[in-house]
Amino acid sequence: MTEQLNYFKWKQQAEAWMREAADYIRWQMHEQLDIKTKEHKNDLVTHVDEGVENFFINKISETYPSHRVMGEEGSFKKIDDLSGVVWILDPIDGTMNFVHQKSFFAISLGIYVDGEPAAGLVYDVMADELYSAVAGFGAFLNGKRLPKLGRVKLDESILSINPGWASKDETVRNLIETVRGARSYGVASLEIAYVASGRLDSYISLNLAPWDVAGGIILLQETGGLATNLKGETLTLLKKDSLIAANPSIHDGLVNRAFGTT
Amino acid sequence: MTEQLNYFKWKQQAEAWMREAADYIRWQMHEQLDIKTKEHKNDLVTHVDEGVENFFINKISETYPSHRVMGEEGSFKKIDDLSGVVWILDPIDGTMNFVHQKSFFAISLGIYVDGEPAAGLVYDVMADELYSAVAGFGAFLNGKRLPKLGRVKLDESILSINPGWASKDETVRNLIETVRGARSYGVASLEIAYVASGRLDSYISLNLAPWDVAGGIILLQETGGLATNLKGETLTLLKKDSLIAANPSIHDGLVNRAFGTT
Repeated sequence: MTEQLNYFKWKQQAEAWMREAADYIRWQMHEQLDIKTKEHKNDLVTHVDEGVENFFINKISETYPSHRVMGEEGSFKKIDDLSGVVWILDPIDGTMNFVHQKSFFAISLGIYVDGEPAAGLVYDVMADELYSAVAGFGAFLNGKRLPKLGRVKLDESILSINPGWASKDETVRNLIETVRGARSYGVASLEIAYVASGRLDSYISLNLAPWDVAGGIILLQETGGLATNLKGETLTLLKKDSLIAANPSIHDGLVNRAFGTT
Repeated sequence: MTEQLNYFKWKQQAEAWMREAADYIRWQMHEQLDIKTKEHKNDLVTHVDEGVENFFINKISETYPSHRVMGEEGSFKKIDDLSGVVWILDPIDGTMNFVHQKSFFAISLGIYVDGEPAAGLVYDVMADELYSAVAGFGAFLNGKRLPKLGRVKLDESILSINPGWASKDETVRNLIETVRGARSYGVASLEIAYVASGRLDSYISLNLAPWDVAGGIILLQETGGLATNLKGETLTLLKKDSLIAANPSIHDGLVNRAFGTT
């Protein structure tokens, strides 16, 4: 329990820092954004992403000098195991939405102890929706407890999947044909949080980084959802991987369908 | 100008009725929904859709006895021309989202005089975002004027398109490959409003009814956007059709790409 009291302290601390960072984001978003591209021309980063990451790195290293941070913008290379306490951060998940839409982006954070979930937070900055969870103690949206996920049928479920994957991949097209409806918001952490809250029944991606999923999958675990890669394997959080985050009653069905075994 | 003063009166009246109907929707949405299917098993309607449509039909026929109403839930069959004043209504656009997500649905209304746009309104009930326009007088979001759309490049644009279309149609997959990012919200009227406000650069569907588009395309016209079917032809609002709603700088490029002529 001593350990878990720390989890609550970290969660509270993270929440306060998120609200501070969100204020910075809202102030900066109507300024001229300094937009750069990373691995490919549609992989965007702005000075705001970097500012938020630096803010968290400074706060965490001042407050918890023994903790490590894995962040999207540059601090990833230093981390090749999850020993000790690791904060896995996406300062702005959905940078393309941030740049183009000025909405539908989130700050995502997962805190892990020796690779085990401690606390997860996903903050939709513009909608002011803060999802948070302490492992073993449930998940909350803006302070209100999220209920455990009820049963759904695969052919009456709503799947979130980027249309770009459907255009490239036959497996994805098969998955889409099995569900009632498909959506896509372009912000992985929030789409996982939507599954945790039942707003979506599943979210699938063919390629995500640890910081895209680390916060959301703790929320999902706390409402009874399941997260694996497309093969049904546990995520390592040390490399990019595919993802099926889903209501527990349809997760296996989706994994089987992804492999064409049903 | 006398005629246009009427447009403002109708717009104000419609806005007041929308807010009244939205209150009804928010009160009903946590009750047990009476969900039926229509043309196919994923085409949903609830007693709330019908309640909102009846509310509008009663209000409009009491206040403007000579006006006609084309509504999604049953009153379509009576309308086969657009002479006089016609209110084209979708009481709940995005019924699947309403049922499953309790968010991302809209009341959509377009008012036409002899087939010409008079006023358009799209109300995102849960986000409390009301888009409205009077033809020739600009478009507004929650009372704030939306600017004319600026230039964008096709390969840096954001397209909204249902992943279900991508799974079925080669043309759609080609279109997705030409843009920077693809999204899907499952609520046509709002996705057209997002194009009008620049949150999206284009929205494409292969099959929409008049009530899905009638309100949004008036908003879009007022910020300089273009709406046609996939062949680039004007919409008739008397039958189902495809739709490309887009920023004017990329509309032709999308139409050409849809026909493989570029």
